[in-house]
Amino acid sequence: MSSIWGQLFRVSTWGESHGGGVGVVVDGCPPRIPVTQEEIQHELDRRRPGQSEIVTPRKEADECEILSGVFEGQTLGSPISIMVRNKDARASAYDEMREKYRPSHADYTYDAKYGIRNWQGGGRASARETIGRVAGAVLARKVVQAASPDYQVLAWVKSIYNLNADVDPATVTSEMVESNIVRTGDPNAVEPMIDLIKKIRGEGNSVGGVIECVVRSCPPGLGAPVFDKLEAELAKAMLSLPATKGFEIGSGFGGTLMTGAEHNDPFYIDEAGRVRTSKNDSGGVQGGISNGEDIVFRVAFKPTATIMTSQKTVSSSKEDTELTGRGRHDACVLPRAVPMVEAMAHLVIGDHLLRQRAQCGGV
Amino acid sequence: MSSIWGQLFRVSTWGESHGGGVGVVVDGCPPRIPVTQEEIQHELDRRRPGQSEIVTPRKEADECEILSGVFEGQTLGSPISIMVRNKDARASAYDEMREKYRPSHADYTYDAKYGIRNWQGGGRASARETIGRVAGAVLARKVVQAASPDYQVLAWVKSIYNLNADVDPATVTSEMVESNIVRTGDPNAVEPMIDLIKKIRGEGNSVGGVIECVVRSCPPGLGAPVFDKLEAELAKAMLSLPATKGFEIGSGFGGTLMTGAEHNDPFYIDEAGRVRTSKNDSGGVQGGISNGEDIVFRVAFKPTATIMTSQKTVSSSKEDTELTGRGRHDACVLPRAVPMVEAMAHLVIGDHLLRQRAQCGGV
Amino acid sequence: MSSIWGQLFRVSTWGESHGGGVGVVVDGCPPRIPVTQEEIQHELDRRRPGQSEIVTPRKEADECEILSGVFEGQTLGSPISIMVRNKDARASAYDEMREKYRPSHADYTYDAKYGIRNWQGGGRASARETIGRVAGAVLARKVVQAASPDYQVLAWVKSIYNLNADVDPATVTSEMVESNIVRTGDPNAVEPMIDLIKKIRGEGNSVGGVIECVVRSCPPGLGAPVFDKLEAELAKAMLSLPATKGFEIGSGFGGTLMTGAEHNDPFYIDEAGRVRTSKNDSGGVQGGISNGEDIVFRVAFKPTATIMTSQKTVSSSKEDTELTGRGRHDACVLPRAVPMVEAMAHLVIGDHLLRQRAQCGGV
Amino acid sequence: MSSIWGQLFRVSTWGESHGGGVGVVVDGCPPRIPVTQEEIQHELDRRRPGQSEIVTPRKEADECEILSGVFEGQTLGSPISIMVRNKDARASAYDEMREKYRPSHADYTYDAKYGIRNWQGGGRASARETIGRVAGAVLARKVVQAASPDYQVLAWVKSIYNLNADVDPATVTSEMVESNIVRTGDPNAVEPMIDLIKKIRGEGNSVGGVIECVVRSCPPGLGAPVFDKLEAELAKAMLSLPATKGFEIGSGFGGTLMTGAEHNDPFYIDEAGRVRTSKNDSGGVQGGISNGEDIVFRVAFKPTATIMTSQKTVSSSKEDTELTGRGRHDACVLPRAVPMVEAMAHLVIGDHLLRQRAQCGGV
Repeated sequence: MSSIWGQLFRVSTWGESHGGGVGVVVDGCPPRIPVTQEEIQHELDRRRPGQSEIVTPRKEADECEILSGVFEGQTLGSPISIMVRNKDARASAYDEMREKYRPSHADYTYDAKYGIRNWQGGGRASARETIGRVAGAVLARKVVQAASPDYQVLAWVKSIYNLNADVDPATVTSEMVESNIVRTGDPNAVEPMIDLIKKIRGEGNSVGGVIECVVRSCPPGLGAPVFDKLEAELAKAMLSLPATKGFEIGSGFGGTLMTGAEHNDPFYIDEAGRVRTSKNDSGGVQGGISNGEDIVFRVAFKPTATIMTSQKTVSSSKEDTELTGRGRHDACVLPRAVPMVEAMAHLVIGDHLLRQRAQCGGV
Repeated sequence: MSSIWGQLFRVSTWGESHGGGVGVVVDGCPPRIPVTQEEIQHELDRRRPGQSEIVTPRKEADECEILSGVFEGQTLGSPISIMVRNKDARASAYDEMREKYRPSHADYTYDAKYGIRNWQGGGRASARETIGRVAGAVLARKVVQAASPDYQVLAWVKSIYNLNADVDPATVTSEMVESNIVRTGDPNAVEPMIDLIKKIRGEGNSVGGVIECVVRSCPPGLGAPVFDKLEAELAKAMLSLPATKGFEIGSGFGGTLMTGAEHNDPFYIDEAGRVRTSKNDSGGVQGGISNGEDIVFRVAFKPTATIMTSQKTVSSSKEDTELTGRGRHDACVLPRAVPMVEAMAHLVIGDHLLRQRAQCGGV
Repeated sequence: MSSIWGQLFRVSTWGESHGGGVGVVVDGCPPRIPVTQEEIQHELDRRRPGQSEIVTPRKEADECEILSGVFEGQTLGSPISIMVRNKDARASAYDEMREKYRPSHADYTYDAKYGIRNWQGGGRASARETIGRVAGAVLARKVVQAASPDYQVLAWVKSIYNLNADVDPATVTSEMVESNIVRTGDPNAVEPMIDLIKKIRGEGNSVGGVIECVVRSCPPGLGAPVFDKLEAELAKAMLSLPATKGFEIGSGFGGTLMTGAEHNDPFYIDEAGRVRTSKNDSGGVQGGISNGEDIVFRVAFKPTATIMTSQKTVSSSKEDTELTGRGRHDACVLPRAVPMVEAMAHLVIGDHLLRQRAQCGGV
Repeated sequence: MSSIWGQLFRVSTWGESHGGGVGVVVDGCPPRIPVTQEEIQHELDRRRPGQSEIVTPRKEADECEILSGVFEGQTLGSPISIMVRNKDARASAYDEMREKYRPSHADYTYDAKYGIRNWQGGGRASARETIGRVAGAVLARKVVQAASPDYQVLAWVKSIYNLNADVDPATVTSEMVESNIVRTGDPNAVEPMIDLIKKIRGEGNSVGGVIECVVRSCPPGLGAPVFDKLEAELAKAMLSLPATKGFEIGSGFGGTLMTGAEHNDPFYIDEAGRVRTSKNDSGGVQGGISNGEDIVFRVAFKPTATIMTSQKTVSSSKEDTELTGRGRHDACVLPRAVPMVEAMAHLVIGDHLLRQRAQCGGV
């Protein structure tokens, strides 16, 4: 039951990096939502390997097929099954990892949990697993847009290692982010970040960083206290992505350095008669419920675990040994993680839109 | 369904700050777990108001009653219902808030979501809601201890505003934390923190901070990829607590300033023949699954929203106005939030212990 | 998790027959639904012991208290906790059952499952457990009536042992059923049924029978293929009631003696332009979805297990022995089971109304 | 969320009769369960069209492919995705049904619920949907057999229209049932049943009947009161199958004609020291929990809705009209429904085995 996300808009993902393929079944999607294979392919292309010179050179086209649940261009209300075949899998690169655990990867813990592991690649712990999430999120997005046409989720690279991008969540655009292969919103940060990734990759090392994300025109009232508060669901969604170590919303950890008088967001009535806040340290969520302001959050990604230099580790037969990584891995996952962060946000908001509709109506 | 936590060890909490009471129903608890009313009361006393000079002076004894599911000192396997009556409720302090929304509190969003709100206190958004969590967590703890006798969850105040405590997660003890009313593990930080809270309270202002938590002797193998990774569940659990804005595990946001070669935790075989890591930037979780090392995480709490100085806000009739807080509120919630953080960790670990037992056995 | 019903309108029941009490927490109820303690008490009075000369003489007033989730006469959208204290519990009547298993009761299987059992009464297997269901169902009913004002669930005793009542599901009224203590809709069946129950009780024996139920003005479109078809959910709901052995909807088992040409319900357009069927062998459900016709189903109740004559059985120490029932039990549960059947139907319909609203809207 | 079955052993089915295919994702399956494509294919062959002269002549090989979750012949603990492509789909046969609703089929209610319908075949209401259930059930069976090697589920045709088979649930074997194309366990009933089906088909009409099923060597203790009693889950599982109208367990509806003294199953201690009952009117379940005896239940199937004679109906434009069925349909679904009934029983037992292991251990 651990590969199923959502209470009402429910995605069930499947697939290992090496095997028949990967995919998703979306259950509970509203009927009569228009969707095309192209829309889903567009998002998959944003997260696929080989898309630029700074990501893994694996050649996977990641072509998707819609197998069910869509008829004459519209959802039926029945489960939507979407599949991507595995293509460029080279199990041989993993021979040594059959016996040796990669430090800080999932090899050891998968063995500890399941007593078995698909050692030909990352198995279920591969970022390839997120294909199903990204595909399902296209439907979630369209469900929310049907209720709130201006709804948008936009993420970007906020920092890589010690390089910070200067991006204003209130004004950054999709065009700004997609105009560069790093997917940052700060033109001045692009070249330094590309140079850093190339340098680190050349050293057989890796780096992480922070992705920032804004949700615009999210209807107020979403989020379900006490346990399924919107920030709690977003936190879980983001920490379920591979390589994540932290989540903060609004003022986040920095907000602990403010007093209440500084931190509280004053309310006012805008010209349209709506309740607004004059600043947004709350990050668009108060009491676990969206307040109509931009939802702004950040996610920390650790450096990629698989590196090309020798590391101390142990074997599955419990002997001390060393391991040097092989295979074609991202030295920095962040450019490809941007659509993953967006996808998880869509899955959270889409599910809570239906939950709100069910309990309280009016959305 | 938003007040129910857990897949197998399931707590259903209920209750507003003003009304008949608050409580919890625990469903799915294993049978034959010994438990007493005193054990539950002990934890409730750690989070109750009026316990020290730096917390809210409300006089609530928070006496609990076990109504079902326990027979002759042992759990029956049937739902365990635990109730605490409300006692010292003063609705009059909230008269003004009937019409005016407290900035950065849940007043406006509850109205936006439900179209109705119990204005006599924080309603369901009151920290009083966590009583049910704390009570249920005692059972979760005992379930895990039955499988792993040395299992322990220990949280402490890591920082308040700009004051940091110097605490070693590997060695800090419950006695160290409980020996001071701030619940920090650093003796040198106690007095400055108490002074700060009193000063801030005197100004009618408030402060937040960071709570750090360690889970010891958690069995390896817990956590359920891909969506219910252990850190994802912990993140959701912590962000479901009132006033939280951030979560990080292991190296967290700071880990983005390390390279992969620095960040990776080397494996080795210890004298007992177990797989261990020589450092713990992973924070006890790899690939979403516990690896047997200490689980270490931090939670950011914003400053209390209800302050005693005048703030700009709006009324429910959508007019600009001002509001000065009243009532008896914590100027700093952290000392009382320590047992809440521990409780949520117990609920996560307890649930995943049963999930692991179901799917993989051997725990 | 086994004492929680529903996906969206979720009731979590608790309590043993002997202990602090019994109750329910309703999570996910829409806000602003008017409800009073009296409305709930009215339904509890219909199922309580001691209400007439043909039911158990136990003196339990079953007074309910609403502890949370209702404010100024309306639901808040937060969990609604309702409790009934246990009063007239006489554990001494059960002394012998501490060691001996009642044949066809739950004593042995509870021990086999949990390894522990509250032998002071039926524990969780007591029909007293259904108090929480009946209380929660009042809220479910009001939720559906808010969408479909003519919505009604009406059940009656269709047969007791070999005595059949002649009742027309299309025309029977609540007044007809409540006018007699058997709760049958056929005036001619009342006296024979009362006489039979008294005679059987005098012999220390027991009888069962069939309850029939009609759901009127259920909105079309409810039910969620493929697994949560409306008849599937109703079947589960009814078979979760104590002492039930069978469920059939529409033509039921008798429908297997018809050909397709006979069984199919012809469609026509009525004067209001609505799609209707000219007969109703489908029982109001087609393809797992309500079609707007009356939903008609029947539930078989076996004779009460606890009887006052000597029976062969075994002890918990695994020795053959004999047991003669004691305590104050119903010789025929059907009159008191009528509100239980209605309650479970409300819980199913209420949950599916919210599910339909979430996925498809328009209801 | 309506196409997902189970709490722990969770199958998510997808697919319409016309479209890319049908399939299932199994989430929560224990790791290291050996399984082959051939084992799954064997069960699919028992339910596929064209297998004998008395079922629909559609030529669908229903070849399955395991896409994920199995590695070197064993389950990984990750989701198992199984797919069957659609092949012999003839949408043209359904042209008329684009506008006209088949009486007692799901056409109208799907339109009423979703506002859209795949009219090229039965869509999601086609029995083809059960392929995913049958495939997933193979894994559930193997999970239970790993704990209880003699565990077996065996179903057979008990009656067709007015023809009854004389079958003893205690002794009937798989060989007896599979030796004839009707799948009944009574050799004397085979020819009359075949003749009846051919005659009815020749008339363009259809018939239903009753399937009986026995579960042998189910571990005691399975089933989760109060809502997820084993019989309640079985009832839901069976009523979720297409064309079902009734369910009864043990004595069922007939048990209402017995007194308690007759109905109660006396306990005794057998030679192995186990608690047994000397008869089995309980049908293997007491208090909602398996008692170790054979679980015996019956399911009523109505006659197939699609018949080849003219019937009164309406169009989607709400006009009265007539419709004569076309396409290749079973005149009697029962022979092919036998493996479906078995599959759903496996899914229920498998899920509850894991649930029991989680909460109570020892199984």
